[in-house]
Amino acid sequence: MRMYDIISKKRDGQMLTEEEIRYFVKGYVAQEIPDYQASALMMAIYLRGMDSRECADLTKAMAESGDMIDLSSINGIKVDKHSTGGVGDTTTIILAPLVASIGVPIAKMSGRGLGHTGGTIDKLESIPGFTPEIQNEQFIRLVNENKIAVVGQTGNLAPADKLLYSLRDVTATVDSIPLIASSIMSKKIAAGAEAIVLDVKTGSGAFMKELQDAEVLAQTMVEIGKHMGRQVSAIISDMNEPLGKAIGNSLEIREALEVLRGDGSKDLTELCLELGSHMALLGGVAKTKEEAWRQLEASISSGQALETFRTFIESQNGDGRIIDKPDRLPQASHIIELPSPYSGFISSMHAEKIGHAAMKLGAGRETKESVIDLAAGIMLHKKTGDYVKSGEALLTIHTNLPEYGQVNDQLLDAIVISNEKPISRPLIYKTIH
Amino acid sequence: MRMYDIISKKRDGQMLTEEEIRYFVKGYVAQEIPDYQASALMMAIYLRGMDSRECADLTKAMAESGDMIDLSSINGIKVDKHSTGGVGDTTTIILAPLVASIGVPIAKMSGRGLGHTGGTIDKLESIPGFTPEIQNEQFIRLVNENKIAVVGQTGNLAPADKLLYSLRDVTATVDSIPLIASSIMSKKIAAGAEAIVLDVKTGSGAFMKELQDAEVLAQTMVEIGKHMGRQVSAIISDMNEPLGKAIGNSLEIREALEVLRGDGSKDLTELCLELGSHMALLGGVAKTKEEAWRQLEASISSGQALETFRTFIESQNGDGRIIDKPDRLPQASHIIELPSPYSGFISSMHAEKIGHAAMKLGAGRETKESVIDLAAGIMLHKKTGDYVKSGEALLTIHTNLPEYGQVNDQLLDAIVISNEKPISRPLIYKTIH
Repeated sequence: MRMYDIISKKRDGQMLTEEEIRYFVKGYVAQEIPDYQASALMMAIYLRGMDSRECADLTKAMAESGDMIDLSSINGIKVDKHSTGGVGDTTTIILAPLVASIGVPIAKMSGRGLGHTGGTIDKLESIPGFTPEIQNEQFIRLVNENKIAVVGQTGNLAPADKLLYSLRDVTATVDSIPLIASSIMSKKIAAGAEAIVLDVKTGSGAFMKELQDAEVLAQTMVEIGKHMGRQVSAIISDMNEPLGKAIGNSLEIREALEVLRGDGSKDLTELCLELGSHMALLGGVAKTKEEAWRQLEASISSGQALETFRTFIESQNGDGRIIDKPDRLPQASHIIELPSPYSGFISSMHAEKIGHAAMKLGAGRETKESVIDLAAGIMLHKKTGDYVKSGEALLTIHTNLPEYGQVNDQLLDAIVISNEKPISRPLIYKTIH
Repeated sequence: MRMYDIISKKRDGQMLTEEEIRYFVKGYVAQEIPDYQASALMMAIYLRGMDSRECADLTKAMAESGDMIDLSSINGIKVDKHSTGGVGDTTTIILAPLVASIGVPIAKMSGRGLGHTGGTIDKLESIPGFTPEIQNEQFIRLVNENKIAVVGQTGNLAPADKLLYSLRDVTATVDSIPLIASSIMSKKIAAGAEAIVLDVKTGSGAFMKELQDAEVLAQTMVEIGKHMGRQVSAIISDMNEPLGKAIGNSLEIREALEVLRGDGSKDLTELCLELGSHMALLGGVAKTKEEAWRQLEASISSGQALETFRTFIESQNGDGRIIDKPDRLPQASHIIELPSPYSGFISSMHAEKIGHAAMKLGAGRETKESVIDLAAGIMLHKKTGDYVKSGEALLTIHTNLPEYGQVNDQLLDAIVISNEKPISRPLIYKTIH
C-alpha cells in the first residue's frame, strides 16, 4: 500500500477502504508518512468529502491510535455528552450531577481548551480545593459509588486526532464536516463512551453558522455511531446569543447552582432538561423522553440534583460550602455594570463578540500559554427579546484587570437595541438519532 | 499576507492575485512556507483549477525564482521549441539545424532527464567529442556566428518549479493542467525564449492520453504566452506509436541525419517541417507557413540543413565525420532482429511499452543514478499500417546487455497484428495560437 495511491484515490473522489484509512493514520502517527502527504490528503478530503462509513473508519483508527479507556468495571450504560461549543455553555456542569442523580453513571473525562472561557475542568477548578487529578481506580470507584466523577484528560487519548488537527489548523482544512465529525467521535470513543448525546450548536456564536451545516454534522456523527455500534442522539440548538446569563468560570458555577436549585435561566434549564432526557433514555433509566424529563424535574425540585453535585465536588476535595454560599467562589476585584445607552427591546446579542469580550477580561485563553482568571467574565441581565430602559444595566463586567473599560464598545456593538420586540427563535431546532 | 489565507481562498475556488502567487513562490523557495502548506495548496489548485492569468503569474514567479538567461546580445528573434515528450522523439536534433539553416537563431538550453531514452544532451553526446558544456560568451558567439548552439542546462533555472515538481510528484498533484502548463512555460521563459513553439503529444505514449486534455494544455500555454507578451504556437500531434523508427540515443542521431538528408521517415519529417514552419514564422524569416515550409524543404534538398548540422557539432568539438559515416557513432555489441510471429497488418504499436523496452535495453534512465548506454535502443522496421510477413523482422534490438531476450515478449505484446489494414490516424490533430 502506498500513501501516494491513497491521496490520488481520494483526489479522484473515490472512497477509501478501512485498510487504507488505517494505513494512513498508523503511518502518520509513526511519522512514516510526512506532513506534506497528510495535508494533501486532508485537502482532498475537504474538497471531495467522505461518506459515513469512511468517517467511522477514520474515527476508529484515530481512537485506536492511543489509549482506549476501559470503563467496563463501571455498572450501567456509560453515556457521554459533547457540545460543539458556544458562549456561556454551562451545560456539562449542570448535566453531570443532574443525570447522575437519576441513576445514569457519569464517568466524564474533560479538558481545558482554548476559547472564550475555560473548559469544564477550569470551571470546576474555580471551586476551592476541587481536583480533577484522580487515579483511574479512584475514578471508577467514585462513579460506582456516587454515579459521578470528572477527571482531567490524562494519558495519550487519540494522538492521531491531535496531530491531524494541528496540521489541519495550518492548512485551511479544519472546517470539513467529515473531519470534524470524526475528530469529535474519536475522542469520545477513546474515552470509553457506550452512548453519546451531542449538542450541535448553530448560529452566530457557533462554529456551524448555518443550520444546514449543523444538521449535516449531527447526522454524520449519528451515522458514525451506527457504524461503530454506539447509540448516538444529537440535538441542534441555537447559539445566536449566549446561553444562560453567565460567561466565565466561577460565574458559570454560580449559574449551574441556580439551575440545579430550580432557579436558573429558562433557556439554560430547558436545554439541560432536553439533553438530560436523551442521556437518561440512552442510559436506560427511563422508557420515554417524557418520563425522563419528569424524573429530572423531580430531582431538581426535591433537591436531589443539588445534593448529587455536593457529593460529587466533595468526593474530589472541593469545598461543598459553595453550594449554600456561592460567594466563597473566586470574586473579581472590579465588578462594573454596563448601562444601556437607549431604551428599547434587545433585538440581538452577538454571542461571539460577547464571548470574545469575556476572554479579553481574562475569562478564557487566547493561546495555550494564557493564564486564566477564574473570577473574570460577564453576567448578562437582559437577553434577546427583553426590554431595557436607558441607563438600566445590560450586563455586569467581572475582572481583575484595571483596564476594564476597554471592552465596553465591543459589548455595546454586540447588543442591538430596537423599538420592536424581535420574533423569538426556537432554542432547539431539531433532534436526530 | 498569510499562506493560510491563500490556501483557503483557492480551496473555496477563488482566484489568487499576482501578489499572493508571488508571496507563495518566494516564501516556498526561501523555505519560509513549509511543504505541508504548499502541498495543501497544490491539491486545492488540482481540484479547483487556475485561470490563464493565474497560470501566467505562477509561470512568471517560478521563472523569476532563479537565474533569468539573457539572450539579448543574440541577433534576431529567439524561438524555442518544447515537446511534452514521447517515444522516439528526435525532433529537437533535427529542428535545431534545420531552422537555423534558414536564419532563425537557435540558442537552445537542453537537459538530460529521465525516460525511455536520454534527453537531447545525451543524444548529442553520442557524437564523439561533442560537448554541451560551453561558457555563456562562447554560446552567444556561436549562435551569432552559426545561428545554432546547444548547451546543457546550467545555473539555477526556475528552482521554484523544481521544488514544486518534487513535492507534486509525491502528493498526487502532478497531472494538473494549470500546474503542468506553468511548469513548462516557466523553464522556457527563464531560458530566455522570446517565442515558443510547442509540440503537445497525445495518445498512448504521451502524458496526455486524451486529445481533449492535450488541447486544454496547449490552449493554456498559448494563453500564458499572451499574458506574458510571448508569441506561442502549439500543435497537437499523435503519440500512439513511436515517432520515426529509432528509439535510442545514437540511433536517433542516425535517424536525424536521414531526415536532414531528405531520407527520413515520413511521419518524423512531416512533423519537423510542421514545427519548423511555425518556428520560422515566429522567428520572422517567413511571411506565411507555406513559404516557411518551402524554405525548409529547399534547405534539406540543397544540403544546407545537413551542413548547418555539421558546423554546429564541429563548433562544439563533435566529430563531423559521423555525418558521412554514421557507423562512427557508438554501436551496440548485440544487434538482434525480432521476427514477426504472424503475417498481417500492424494495427497498433504501443508507444509506451516499446519505449519502456528501450529503457530496459539501456537507452534510458530509470532513476537519476542510472548509467545510460548511448548505443542501446530499438530500430523499428514496420509502423502502423504496414504489412509484415511471418518471420520477417519487425524491429532490431541494439544493446550491450547479454540478456537481450528479456524484452521480446514485452515488444511482441506491444505490437498488434491483424488481418485488416487499420484506418490511418492523422499525425497532427490541431494547431493553436
